[in-house]
Amino acid sequence: MIVRPRLHWLRMLFVWRGSVVPRILWRLGFFLALSCLVVAMGPPSFRLEPGPLGLVGVALAIFLGFRNSTAYDRFWEGRKLWGSLVIVSRSFTRQALTLPTPALTRDERRGVCDRLSALALTLNHQLRQTQADVTTLSSGVREHVLRAEHRPARVLMGLAEWLSEQRRQGRLSDLLVTSLDENLNRLSEVLGGCERIAATPIPYVYSVMLHRTVYLYSLLLPFALAGGLGWATPLVSVFISYTFIALDTVTAELEDPFGTEPNDLPLDALTRHVERAVLELAGEPLPPALQPDERFVLT
Amino acid sequence: MIVRPRLHWLRMLFVWRGSVVPRILWRLGFFLALSCLVVAMGPPSFRLEPGPLGLVGVALAIFLGFRNSTAYDRFWEGRKLWGSLVIVSRSFTRQALTLPTPALTRDERRGVCDRLSALALTLNHQLRQTQADVTTLSSGVREHVLRAEHRPARVLMGLAEWLSEQRRQGRLSDLLVTSLDENLNRLSEVLGGCERIAATPIPYVYSVMLHRTVYLYSLLLPFALAGGLGWATPLVSVFISYTFIALDTVTAELEDPFGTEPNDLPLDALTRHVERAVLELAGEPLPPALQPDERFVLT
Amino acid sequence: MIVRPRLHWLRMLFVWRGSVVPRILWRLGFFLALSCLVVAMGPPSFRLEPGPLGLVGVALAIFLGFRNSTAYDRFWEGRKLWGSLVIVSRSFTRQALTLPTPALTRDERRGVCDRLSALALTLNHQLRQTQADVTTLSSGVREHVLRAEHRPARVLMGLAEWLSEQRRQGRLSDLLVTSLDENLNRLSEVLGGCERIAATPIPYVYSVMLHRTVYLYSLLLPFALAGGLGWATPLVSVFISYTFIALDTVTAELEDPFGTEPNDLPLDALTRHVERAVLELAGEPLPPALQPDERFVLT
Amino acid sequence: MIVRPRLHWLRMLFVWRGSVVPRILWRLGFFLALSCLVVAMGPPSFRLEPGPLGLVGVALAIFLGFRNSTAYDRFWEGRKLWGSLVIVSRSFTRQALTLPTPALTRDERRGVCDRLSALALTLNHQLRQTQADVTTLSSGVREHVLRAEHRPARVLMGLAEWLSEQRRQGRLSDLLVTSLDENLNRLSEVLGGCERIAATPIPYVYSVMLHRTVYLYSLLLPFALAGGLGWATPLVSVFISYTFIALDTVTAELEDPFGTEPNDLPLDALTRHVERAVLELAGEPLPPALQPDERFVLT
Amino acid sequence: MIVRPRLHWLRMLFVWRGSVVPRILWRLGFFLALSCLVVAMGPPSFRLEPGPLGLVGVALAIFLGFRNSTAYDRFWEGRKLWGSLVIVSRSFTRQALTLPTPALTRDERRGVCDRLSALALTLNHQLRQTQADVTTLSSGVREHVLRAEHRPARVLMGLAEWLSEQRRQGRLSDLLVTSLDENLNRLSEVLGGCERIAATPIPYVYSVMLHRTVYLYSLLLPFALAGGLGWATPLVSVFISYTFIALDTVTAELEDPFGTEPNDLPLDALTRHVERAVLELAGEPLPPALQPDERFVLT
Repeated sequence: MIVRPRLHWLRMLFVWRGSVVPRILWRLGFFLALSCLVVAMGPPSFRLEPGPLGLVGVALAIFLGFRNSTAYDRFWEGRKLWGSLVIVSRSFTRQALTLPTPALTRDERRGVCDRLSALALTLNHQLRQTQADVTTLSSGVREHVLRAEHRPARVLMGLAEWLSEQRRQGRLSDLLVTSLDENLNRLSEVLGGCERIAATPIPYVYSVMLHRTVYLYSLLLPFALAGGLGWATPLVSVFISYTFIALDTVTAELEDPFGTEPNDLPLDALTRHVERAVLELAGEPLPPALQPDERFVLT
Repeated sequence: MIVRPRLHWLRMLFVWRGSVVPRILWRLGFFLALSCLVVAMGPPSFRLEPGPLGLVGVALAIFLGFRNSTAYDRFWEGRKLWGSLVIVSRSFTRQALTLPTPALTRDERRGVCDRLSALALTLNHQLRQTQADVTTLSSGVREHVLRAEHRPARVLMGLAEWLSEQRRQGRLSDLLVTSLDENLNRLSEVLGGCERIAATPIPYVYSVMLHRTVYLYSLLLPFALAGGLGWATPLVSVFISYTFIALDTVTAELEDPFGTEPNDLPLDALTRHVERAVLELAGEPLPPALQPDERFVLT
Repeated sequence: MIVRPRLHWLRMLFVWRGSVVPRILWRLGFFLALSCLVVAMGPPSFRLEPGPLGLVGVALAIFLGFRNSTAYDRFWEGRKLWGSLVIVSRSFTRQALTLPTPALTRDERRGVCDRLSALALTLNHQLRQTQADVTTLSSGVREHVLRAEHRPARVLMGLAEWLSEQRRQGRLSDLLVTSLDENLNRLSEVLGGCERIAATPIPYVYSVMLHRTVYLYSLLLPFALAGGLGWATPLVSVFISYTFIALDTVTAELEDPFGTEPNDLPLDALTRHVERAVLELAGEPLPPALQPDERFVLT
Repeated sequence: MIVRPRLHWLRMLFVWRGSVVPRILWRLGFFLALSCLVVAMGPPSFRLEPGPLGLVGVALAIFLGFRNSTAYDRFWEGRKLWGSLVIVSRSFTRQALTLPTPALTRDERRGVCDRLSALALTLNHQLRQTQADVTTLSSGVREHVLRAEHRPARVLMGLAEWLSEQRRQGRLSDLLVTSLDENLNRLSEVLGGCERIAATPIPYVYSVMLHRTVYLYSLLLPFALAGGLGWATPLVSVFISYTFIALDTVTAELEDPFGTEPNDLPLDALTRHVERAVLELAGEPLPPALQPDERFVLT
Repeated sequence: MIVRPRLHWLRMLFVWRGSVVPRILWRLGFFLALSCLVVAMGPPSFRLEPGPLGLVGVALAIFLGFRNSTAYDRFWEGRKLWGSLVIVSRSFTRQALTLPTPALTRDERRGVCDRLSALALTLNHQLRQTQADVTTLSSGVREHVLRAEHRPARVLMGLAEWLSEQRRQGRLSDLLVTSLDENLNRLSEVLGGCERIAATPIPYVYSVMLHRTVYLYSLLLPFALAGGLGWATPLVSVFISYTFIALDTVTAELEDPFGTEPNDLPLDALTRHVERAVLELAGEPLPPALQPDERFVLT
């Protein structure tokens, strides 16, 4: 995610880092060249006018508007789920620190924090389909986790076993167990929600339809404008193409919010945030928060 | 559901598999032929202009925009409900594995998993109105299920009976029973939600209005464009018709998300996913996950 | 509700049953006649052009788009509430069948089912403002219900009394009572939600504004088009009027989803569905499901 | 709230009562006069055309569309909150009538009903910033309430004290207390939700931007149309102005749904509805429901 | 937040305070000057027409509409979260005052109120990234809080410790503890929700795309209009630019609702509101509510 500090409105017009322009420069260049060519060739035998092209606008507005809001909803739902992960991790820690009798020892407290951190870590890697060790877990638990196909579910199971163990030892009554167990249900919802977004993209056919409409439209644009605008055509037609191609590119990034492209969610920073949140409650020393790199990108 | 890997933006323009074009090719061909005919016939006595046709755009935008977002909402709600099925199945398994005293034997654990798998399986077949055996269930339960009209509700009842049995044996206190029972309520919500989507389509009148508007619009288009565009008419008018007809076709698929058309939800894969999710928690060997076929379709 | 089976895209263009056209035929006829008259009269002294009329499009799009999505939301929320009624009725039955000790006798089971069916039945008649007997209830309860102004609330109270009675007999612990009582809260939400939709229409002023705009627009249309289109005017102007008048008519039906117009919710079928759902769980013989009539209408 | 019975589509075009026209008549008259003047003055040196004005349409559509849906959302959320008040009042009454052992006497039952009615009444007056006595409450409680700044919160506190008293007397176990207390939480949500809507208007700047755009647009309209339409200008331009000014006026009413303007929520009727709902459950005689006045307005 | 009293519709057209105009005056002035220059220069060799520029309208509508609704959603969600803070603080106070046995002393009651006020205060300063003392807390708790990185989470932990202490003293049974603990979970959700909004802006790329489109559009506008409108150009083009630039500016404020700009949420007033709400329930003297300053701004 790009977390650039807010700029003066004038400087914002010339931003390069954090803009989508660098990635679509070649395409815009192509349409610029095409426009110039069309104007230079003089009145084409292939006539077009802005009016008819405006009729495509309705479909384009529906496609782009739908794709954009759907992609952003996925992005924001993903963020909400990770927000829930922070919230419930804190709630579970709070309960684990205040409810058992006798209270947890420092080591036991640390154990709970480690399991919650491991949950965030394994979820992160599950979603990005990368591999990572979970060194903070005790060796027995860790082995189980590494062998599992769906590791975060296994870590969550480990928390349930910890809870069951507290109950067996009589440190938590059935009533308090159900109270903590309810928060495990909520963690399960976070896992399942993230899984759902990651496993079910926006129906493929939308991407194809939008993509084709955008590029075909951009291709016809110079022909439609050249007659009326003359040498203003390249400027206007590339401007219009820029708005559509940029939006098409951005929504393709946002619709899969757990990736590692510039506009995706900063899962690494969020994982660290969960870790810091639970450790602070437990009164443990905190690892530093992740900072954006020099391109303002937070991973 | 089509789960095609992400393509380069240039290749995406020429995708055939996973596109809706093959299915509407004949219709587009008809409108292409019509356009050519209209242009070839010379200035028609039947005059039309793009301006008045643009007035239809307002209604078309409302119809298409509404139909599209409603259909997608149904698709996505269906997906969320099946996501909930995964989540709650995992939660119920977690509770069944950690809360009873004494703990379940391996056979009993397997029994819980089988019931949850059977729930997903029967829901799948209920929604697709197909018949299937539920071989994993013990013969007594199975007979009950096969005799029922609404099989998933019967399987859920079986889970409630299992829970009641645990309570009668004193392995679960009233308190823990209500905690598991709450998850049965959630499963009941999943069943009811899927039923609602399957039983109540978008009001029929919308489909008819949209359908007529789209095709009548496409029919008038060549007449409106021919005067101003000449031989560019076939290209532009088929392009515009393509966007509307494709969207009309796609939304008709998505609005009934539990069918077996290319853009519908992959219920078979999700059923298997539930099965794998609960078996993994129970430490049982896993059946393989379902893979998309060579046309990138996952059923 | 019209539940017509899916048709071939070509046949769908000529659907008569289930279309809104028959109901607005006279109005469309009037605008057709007007158009012909305007064209036949030759160039009117009262000049109009499509451009200025396009400016009305903005307001029309906002009015129609808003009215349509709001009306559909009411329709769909109504459906969700009745879906909830099915879900919670099933959940309550499940709990009543599995939790009390000793278990209910067959007569008692039947009693619970009858009360839940009566809830759906009285809610149905409350919403449609019709009168109906609740013959399934025992005479004592029935009398109470028939005397009440808000009958479904009274039936729900009867369920609470049944629950209280179970508790007094020691068949349900306080804990299990609260678990069933929570489902009574949910039923109360269903009742209240339906009541809210039925008692609070979309603010009247919207209907008036939209209505006027649609008909005034349709009236001006022939004058605006005649100059440019000649004898194509009747076709195009009636086509545009059709889209707006049809949508206005449909949304007026959907906004009050509990009525008995063709696009309203099939409350009778849903009432029967609740009855069947709870009876099946109790292992009782089932009354037949309601079927759509020959006009594909389900009431 | 205007609750006019549904009219024939033809009569609806000429509705006066319940329409917003009477309130904006002078403004429409002004724009009518302006239009006539502009046409009568002949071709102005101040040239304008519909095309450029159409560009304002985009902003206008966004402003009006946003303001309208936001205002309606506030209206509908307010209605939902009052619907919740009815629902939870009924649920609380149901619990109070069936759960305590020994059961409440008639006087005690009446006391619970009175407190719930007083909650609705004080909330009503709090939202409308009017003063009212709460004569139904016993003198001790009443004094407390009248001295409080936020009276509904004080009434709710009174319900909590009643609950605490029941518990102290041993009529409700801790478990049943938490069950009723959960409904007090829900009532607290209703109070807080209404407070939020009443205290936080739509950001002021939106009203100003929309207002200015609408009137400036209406002012420019005759100049833009006169050239092309001649004496059709007054009709068309006042028609367009009407749609925008009417919508601006209506949304200003709806955005503050707890006021006493014609399209606001009928808080008095809803207060009475709560009173009737709880009294009916308790088997007490009911005060009559409020009826709309001769202008179809329900307060 | 600007809380200006409602004005007459005529006066509202000339509002200065609370309008966004003062802040964008220089920019509008620049575009005014540019327009005049373009018209004065006579027919430019650089031709432009309104038609092609209208094609940009589609993208602009999508960008502005999306940005606006997303920004407002963030604003309103932030407000809802602070509304929840009020609601749950009241609920927690109610429970703390009525449930423990023996009841809290006056000092203890005051202690609970102080902790809840401190929660609002620290959340306020956390969100605005300012520093503030929490003088109301007892010195032991205060030290802990001031040392924490995430102070509101630490204050919440303090409430959990207070709750745990009540339980250890036997004043609250496990059951009542879980009931209050559930409200701590809700407070945790408020904290996490606010954190999410504050930490995750709308993807930066949207701001850049919209910003560029708005200003480039405004720059091209005079050239497109001058040919057709002559000296009406400055008026119309600045009017259009005003609508877009004003909306761009307002949404930039609203998207970060916890700042201190004129349209941001009045966190100071809300903090005081929480304090007053809990103190009133406890029967303590109330500090005065915050009032808007002479520019109608409430902070």
